[in-house]
Amino acid sequence: MIRTAEQYVESLNDGRVIYLNGEKIPDITKHPSFRGPINARAMSYILYYHPEFKDLLTVEEDGDRFLFLWKQPKTSEDLVKRRDLYITCMRWGAAMSGMGPDALAASGVVAARMDKNLGTNYTEAIEDYRKHLKEKDPAITGAITDVKGNRGMRPSAQEQHQDFYVRVVDRQKDGIYVRGAKMHISATPTANELIVSPCRGHREEDKDYAVVFATPINAKGITLLTSPPYYSETGEEAEWNWPASGRYAGVSECMIVFDDVFVPWNRVFMCGEWQYSRDQAWMFGVFHRLFGTCHKVISTEEAAGVAALMAEYNGLDRYPHIQEKLAWLAMHAQMVDAMSRAGCEIPDYFEDIGLAAPNLMYTNIAKYIFANDQHETSKIVADITGGIASTVFSYKDWMNPEERPYIEKYLAGKNGVPTEHRLRAVRLAKDLIGHGHDGAFIHTEGSLAAQKMAMYAAADWDRYKAIAKRIAGIPGWKESETLKDLPDWPTEMIVK
Amino acid sequence: MIRTAEQYVESLNDGRVIYLNGEKIPDITKHPSFRGPINARAMSYILYYHPEFKDLLTVEEDGDRFLFLWKQPKTSEDLVKRRDLYITCMRWGAAMSGMGPDALAASGVVAARMDKNLGTNYTEAIEDYRKHLKEKDPAITGAITDVKGNRGMRPSAQEQHQDFYVRVVDRQKDGIYVRGAKMHISATPTANELIVSPCRGHREEDKDYAVVFATPINAKGITLLTSPPYYSETGEEAEWNWPASGRYAGVSECMIVFDDVFVPWNRVFMCGEWQYSRDQAWMFGVFHRLFGTCHKVISTEEAAGVAALMAEYNGLDRYPHIQEKLAWLAMHAQMVDAMSRAGCEIPDYFEDIGLAAPNLMYTNIAKYIFANDQHETSKIVADITGGIASTVFSYKDWMNPEERPYIEKYLAGKNGVPTEHRLRAVRLAKDLIGHGHDGAFIHTEGSLAAQKMAMYAAADWDRYKAIAKRIAGIPGWKESETLKDLPDWPTEMIVK
Amino acid sequence: MIRTAEQYVESLNDGRVIYLNGEKIPDITKHPSFRGPINARAMSYILYYHPEFKDLLTVEEDGDRFLFLWKQPKTSEDLVKRRDLYITCMRWGAAMSGMGPDALAASGVVAARMDKNLGTNYTEAIEDYRKHLKEKDPAITGAITDVKGNRGMRPSAQEQHQDFYVRVVDRQKDGIYVRGAKMHISATPTANELIVSPCRGHREEDKDYAVVFATPINAKGITLLTSPPYYSETGEEAEWNWPASGRYAGVSECMIVFDDVFVPWNRVFMCGEWQYSRDQAWMFGVFHRLFGTCHKVISTEEAAGVAALMAEYNGLDRYPHIQEKLAWLAMHAQMVDAMSRAGCEIPDYFEDIGLAAPNLMYTNIAKYIFANDQHETSKIVADITGGIASTVFSYKDWMNPEERPYIEKYLAGKNGVPTEHRLRAVRLAKDLIGHGHDGAFIHTEGSLAAQKMAMYAAADWDRYKAIAKRIAGIPGWKESETLKDLPDWPTEMIVK
Amino acid sequence: MIRTAEQYVESLNDGRVIYLNGEKIPDITKHPSFRGPINARAMSYILYYHPEFKDLLTVEEDGDRFLFLWKQPKTSEDLVKRRDLYITCMRWGAAMSGMGPDALAASGVVAARMDKNLGTNYTEAIEDYRKHLKEKDPAITGAITDVKGNRGMRPSAQEQHQDFYVRVVDRQKDGIYVRGAKMHISATPTANELIVSPCRGHREEDKDYAVVFATPINAKGITLLTSPPYYSETGEEAEWNWPASGRYAGVSECMIVFDDVFVPWNRVFMCGEWQYSRDQAWMFGVFHRLFGTCHKVISTEEAAGVAALMAEYNGLDRYPHIQEKLAWLAMHAQMVDAMSRAGCEIPDYFEDIGLAAPNLMYTNIAKYIFANDQHETSKIVADITGGIASTVFSYKDWMNPEERPYIEKYLAGKNGVPTEHRLRAVRLAKDLIGHGHDGAFIHTEGSLAAQKMAMYAAADWDRYKAIAKRIAGIPGWKESETLKDLPDWPTEMIVK
Repeated sequence: MIRTAEQYVESLNDGRVIYLNGEKIPDITKHPSFRGPINARAMSYILYYHPEFKDLLTVEEDGDRFLFLWKQPKTSEDLVKRRDLYITCMRWGAAMSGMGPDALAASGVVAARMDKNLGTNYTEAIEDYRKHLKEKDPAITGAITDVKGNRGMRPSAQEQHQDFYVRVVDRQKDGIYVRGAKMHISATPTANELIVSPCRGHREEDKDYAVVFATPINAKGITLLTSPPYYSETGEEAEWNWPASGRYAGVSECMIVFDDVFVPWNRVFMCGEWQYSRDQAWMFGVFHRLFGTCHKVISTEEAAGVAALMAEYNGLDRYPHIQEKLAWLAMHAQMVDAMSRAGCEIPDYFEDIGLAAPNLMYTNIAKYIFANDQHETSKIVADITGGIASTVFSYKDWMNPEERPYIEKYLAGKNGVPTEHRLRAVRLAKDLIGHGHDGAFIHTEGSLAAQKMAMYAAADWDRYKAIAKRIAGIPGWKESETLKDLPDWPTEMIVK
Repeated sequence: MIRTAEQYVESLNDGRVIYLNGEKIPDITKHPSFRGPINARAMSYILYYHPEFKDLLTVEEDGDRFLFLWKQPKTSEDLVKRRDLYITCMRWGAAMSGMGPDALAASGVVAARMDKNLGTNYTEAIEDYRKHLKEKDPAITGAITDVKGNRGMRPSAQEQHQDFYVRVVDRQKDGIYVRGAKMHISATPTANELIVSPCRGHREEDKDYAVVFATPINAKGITLLTSPPYYSETGEEAEWNWPASGRYAGVSECMIVFDDVFVPWNRVFMCGEWQYSRDQAWMFGVFHRLFGTCHKVISTEEAAGVAALMAEYNGLDRYPHIQEKLAWLAMHAQMVDAMSRAGCEIPDYFEDIGLAAPNLMYTNIAKYIFANDQHETSKIVADITGGIASTVFSYKDWMNPEERPYIEKYLAGKNGVPTEHRLRAVRLAKDLIGHGHDGAFIHTEGSLAAQKMAMYAAADWDRYKAIAKRIAGIPGWKESETLKDLPDWPTEMIVK
Repeated sequence: MIRTAEQYVESLNDGRVIYLNGEKIPDITKHPSFRGPINARAMSYILYYHPEFKDLLTVEEDGDRFLFLWKQPKTSEDLVKRRDLYITCMRWGAAMSGMGPDALAASGVVAARMDKNLGTNYTEAIEDYRKHLKEKDPAITGAITDVKGNRGMRPSAQEQHQDFYVRVVDRQKDGIYVRGAKMHISATPTANELIVSPCRGHREEDKDYAVVFATPINAKGITLLTSPPYYSETGEEAEWNWPASGRYAGVSECMIVFDDVFVPWNRVFMCGEWQYSRDQAWMFGVFHRLFGTCHKVISTEEAAGVAALMAEYNGLDRYPHIQEKLAWLAMHAQMVDAMSRAGCEIPDYFEDIGLAAPNLMYTNIAKYIFANDQHETSKIVADITGGIASTVFSYKDWMNPEERPYIEKYLAGKNGVPTEHRLRAVRLAKDLIGHGHDGAFIHTEGSLAAQKMAMYAAADWDRYKAIAKRIAGIPGWKESETLKDLPDWPTEMIVK
Repeated sequence: MIRTAEQYVESLNDGRVIYLNGEKIPDITKHPSFRGPINARAMSYILYYHPEFKDLLTVEEDGDRFLFLWKQPKTSEDLVKRRDLYITCMRWGAAMSGMGPDALAASGVVAARMDKNLGTNYTEAIEDYRKHLKEKDPAITGAITDVKGNRGMRPSAQEQHQDFYVRVVDRQKDGIYVRGAKMHISATPTANELIVSPCRGHREEDKDYAVVFATPINAKGITLLTSPPYYSETGEEAEWNWPASGRYAGVSECMIVFDDVFVPWNRVFMCGEWQYSRDQAWMFGVFHRLFGTCHKVISTEEAAGVAALMAEYNGLDRYPHIQEKLAWLAMHAQMVDAMSRAGCEIPDYFEDIGLAAPNLMYTNIAKYIFANDQHETSKIVADITGGIASTVFSYKDWMNPEERPYIEKYLAGKNGVPTEHRLRAVRLAKDLIGHGHDGAFIHTEGSLAAQKMAMYAAADWDRYKAIAKRIAGIPGWKESETLKDLPDWPTEMIVK
């Protein structure tokens, strides 16, 4: 089934234990700070029923319709569609959280591998969970990053306590008990359930930390501490002051505390198989970096667009040094898009288990380049927009009839552009480059170091070395698949 | 005289017309948003009386004591002292606005030049103003950046109206009337008076825009529109959430509207000498960039410090890739400091008028490198701090007795570091790299393009070309001062 | 027909006037400095007959076989095949000059446009030339860059003489006479004919410079001044010392002087249509940048490969900071490849004339990123290889029986790697990063500025601005093709 | 004494065993490839007698005159003079090798420390050596970098043999025997003697590698393998083709093989004190990086100069995007100069031993920035010069009377600039950015990683952390020397 937007919203008043800015919130659907994000996610439910987008976002099987994301990707087409789905929702402004579906897809791959190699039965639990997702249509998210304590120590070697990474504290006949806390988990207040996975590889001594499971968010023992929002305005004021994030964003990330939470076995997808933790983390990584690149296809285009608008409104779009900067922004947006798309068009196929994942190299490249250049992007937008991105007036200034004539007169730009349009463009620029977004963007979906490791792992070093060996006259290049069909250098050249 | 801090604060309740966030403020000394910046500036008055700093900050002449900054710099020592003065105040947290003193120093240079070359008498007006400053000790600021309208058009060619740059609209026997608006003017609410100068060069047709003058801020016809503050908290909450800016910052920048404001001739330092507008803008630029580099000596050290603290608290300070990033931050801080100091130690002397200014090349280099690398600085701090700089909890969360145990337990870092210390360091990192500071920093004291132009102008191209010519065997190098004493290449070499 | 390698070589002894390093060369097929490049180009003739590559490189039509590149690209498939063809030849080491075929393809596009818009008949001349190419199979190149004189002046405004850009000096009934000189023209000594086109846009006063034509290289009045080679070794010594360029490279670029050279009308593809010069230059640019990206798919992989080999041979491939640098090289190679491929897979279609060209945005991105990062690539390879890339010994040292034991013993790297292998890898690194290649690479196929202009021109600014307008609440976004189908923001949100 | 240039040259024919490009050279003073470097070094002897430079370069004590560099630096003035001395020689074109004097200064520091801490007597040997230097005036160099083998293993852990780092193989009553090989040792063919030091820190098991000593270059058992020169031209042709390096450069770097070479105890400055190897390597590093920065004061100015010339000759010096690039080059040159100078003006004083060394932080910054931006420098020079830096004609082309008219006519630039001047400037640009110089420059005086380590070590982390703590409200900042005098935050602020 696909729930209606109203059913979805109602379901969030489920008794969950949640705090925001020092306040315990009894029902988030009534609190102004949660209104934006709930509406944004509710919008995706509207799209599921939209005649134009329905077939992209949902699937009909056996007379029932459910979210396309509940299916395990097996082909390039599945991944291209997944990408289109994410981008389409984001373009409209509908929050489509990738954390949950990406954790589900990663678990599908790793469970199949564990079952094949170890003889476990995790795929069965996952299939059971998929059935539940199709029937009940819960909104889900995925919890990966642990709070970590001393970053220089492994989970089981931590000195202050053993709970810096989520772990199994008890195993019973009907299920397990888990303890710990996950951090920076996006889209949590707007979710009904979540899938929890490890964020790193493990050794045998860490095996209690090798645990993957799904749980309702209102389960006993779960406490949500919401990260305070960037701004305190609400409603029309928020939308005017923060055009990109003020309508539907607001609060999103939570620290999720697990105080000995019970999880039944049919929701446990890994438990102790420490050799597969790294695989789970990497699989989630590549699926979720695909999601991240979709987000940044949107945000890099917004950056190019607002810079182009500001150049125009400031009367500067004819100057070569401005065009050069704009060209960089367009190049950047197109590269993120093309590399992200290539990751779906040429996926990594896992032939042993018949599944597919986004191409490890291309997807990490797409993620790395936007993250690595996020600060450069902001710098260029700030440079073109001018100091006014720091000092621009607010909704309340604009609404004050004594101030407005001064603002109208003096903040005008190029002739023919209403001052209000220029102001709105400045507020958008301010929203996109302020609030510490830049720092957040280099960490979401894994830090820069994580992508570099993945790219190193994904690179075809044997091929590159063979190419160099062939030219340098070092034996061994014939073993390379790429080069093996090339003719030898002609032994007898034409001209002696 | 030197006023006491109390006298200073009292003087700000002077009937000025000032708005903040849509609200007209009758007395800023009573408004919580202005408390921080007023206190910060008041602190400089405490330092003036402090036995240890008194002789750095003030001068005693003829039995009276006044601010050292009222004197016109003539030597390297004057400039080194000016720099020490700025840095000392900033290190303590005392706001010492450079806008006013820097505009005063620039005017001193340009007035002397105009008087010498054109036979004007502006130096007399400036001396009269200095006398007033010494006697009354007003807090001053300087207003440079105009609102500009279409950036692709000169002041007098603007299409919508003629007031996008401040200009003289009437000349009378006793003084002039000025109209227009200045933008992004720092330290305005906490000032009593301000010096207004042009921000660009002019042609003859723009001569009404070639105007420099001083005026009280509560003069008839002046309206201040304050840029809204970054945050809405006040008091202890602001200090906890925003350790760097929450105590003494808050509001600072204003758009200053001049509605036909009257200025008597003894406060007019340029009026129509369009050939000297560029000189005024460049002189202000180099003095104020020196000030900016002082500010960034402080901020780059803070960035290095907080990154080092976070590396330590996260248990990562032993890792080479972290040390490499920290080394970059330390290098950056030391380069800004050394280049800024070199700008004072080897100043530009103007022998015709017996005055000195910070070295154009070195000072612009110091300003350029911190501004150009501001985003890189933030990127590194964000990288080392982690995603928590985006999602960290607030004062109110920390004060909530139900949330605190979770935060205490789960946000702990390295063993032995109290969680509160780590939280405070994270809040400092968040404060330093968020709020769109990066964008502001590339525009304060002139955009990056302005420094590049100045460096190009300051470079000794004749010398560089002579060096290249000498090696390339192209005649003409002997005319260079640097090379002229070098012996010719030996015509007869030892080994033939 | 397809000539044999022997026929090809013979044809180069055609009486052409050619100089190298101050020497007039009567027959280049007998001169050691030309042996490498002639052999390299001769190799492509071997590939034309190779059973595995024949169908990629050549086409059979009406019982005759000819080079695939003589066909005008009309589809994505044509462009993908063109790219595969270039890459395949280069991988083997066969020189496949793109200059000529790219000029031909550009002329095909522009001639069709001129004929359609101006009623000219240039397509007929081009078809006649294609017939000649298919029948006689000459090796061709393309001459674009003029010598330019004062870069700040247009062709007809040059002060010293009017011949800094190739121009028509006389028009006769049977043909035209041209004068001027082209510079940096690759693959000229190894070509039989060449196509000459303008390198920039023109105004009406420059219309004599708007000329495109084909000519044999041994035509009366043509003089070739060959750029001196990078190295003076030949034969085995050259191959050992310079593994990448010493076998088949050597000399390539020429200044081609046209001293009133006659060109018959059936070889003239533009003559005076100054409005189309820019189009011709841009079309050549995008076709030839595709070629350039093929070349750099090869060279970026070589750089990644030799760096990986050196890391291994030096015993450093386990270190994270080395892996991070290697990951960058792999990322760079994969991005160049993927963006170049995207340029063929999603080409620009010209519906009015039924032709296709490589995607202007993607192709310029691919070219820009390798050129812009060429110095960074060399820096990383140099960093990993070590100082030995500067100081490594030569073939003659290695062959000296007294020196070799010292070299064998002391230049050994990791245990198990023969010293000779390490030496060969070092020589390859030295070859790839020395000789001023870096500077050459940023200028081949157009300078960085040229790509930035092209990217600015190719960017879909209306779309980007519409995206920004939609979010900022500025009217006008509905006119964008990308956004027009998106639903409006829900006027009534679920949660009020 | 100070030898004459003639005496110096004669002394190089001393029976040394030296190879170049596979050839054993019986007397280097007769070989054309050594003529340039010998002349260049001989020039410094001319300067010693030059009335204007004599007092900068030499010292008179007790009626005898000797090289200033034989004295151990104790003050800022000594270091400033050392820097001036190096720069003056280099500006003239006189090769003044820093390797030897820098190794001597480093040994002076470390010997004093060992003697003080361990009770050794190395200072006595060093004083004896200084006496010899003053009396005999040999030209010396310093050998640091070992051949290293597997870079991932310590000296004593190498698998293939134990000689990848120079080591003591025997200790006798009268002296020691050493074996191994040093690599990339500059200025070796033109030196009479050399000082050998370790290039890294050691552990106890490596103590045989902790050895510092001086030896004549023609000592029994020493074999020199010279790195082949960049170019093969000599005389006027070399000077025309390679204006920067063709006159006096040529060959310089050697691999120096030590086949059980005997060193008497009065030339041994460390032998087994493995705890001080790192100190020796770091002291040499900082002294020699000062030297390197002098070299780059010269080379960065040359780069700025040739780029400015080319911009002028190409008619482009009025364009903002060219001026922006030139400004960067000037900025870079000035920063290298200022940071290098700061390293001498504010040295590190070692109070325990009464000696001084260049400031570790500033000197490493100066070295790091030029090395890190060397490729960027070349990129800008290449960008402004144009593709002609790759394809420019040679001396022999220019001298050919048939080619010259074409070159004269077509390679002309801006009106009024002789074509020959433009050609010479292009050749200079080609010389500066080609030959793999860029790669060499990042490795000379230690790789980039070495500077980063040094900067991390030199940074005042306690101070930076204290600054951050003070703002963040974390206790402990009062312990910092910089902050301890600052007043506490006012407990009672003016405005409550």
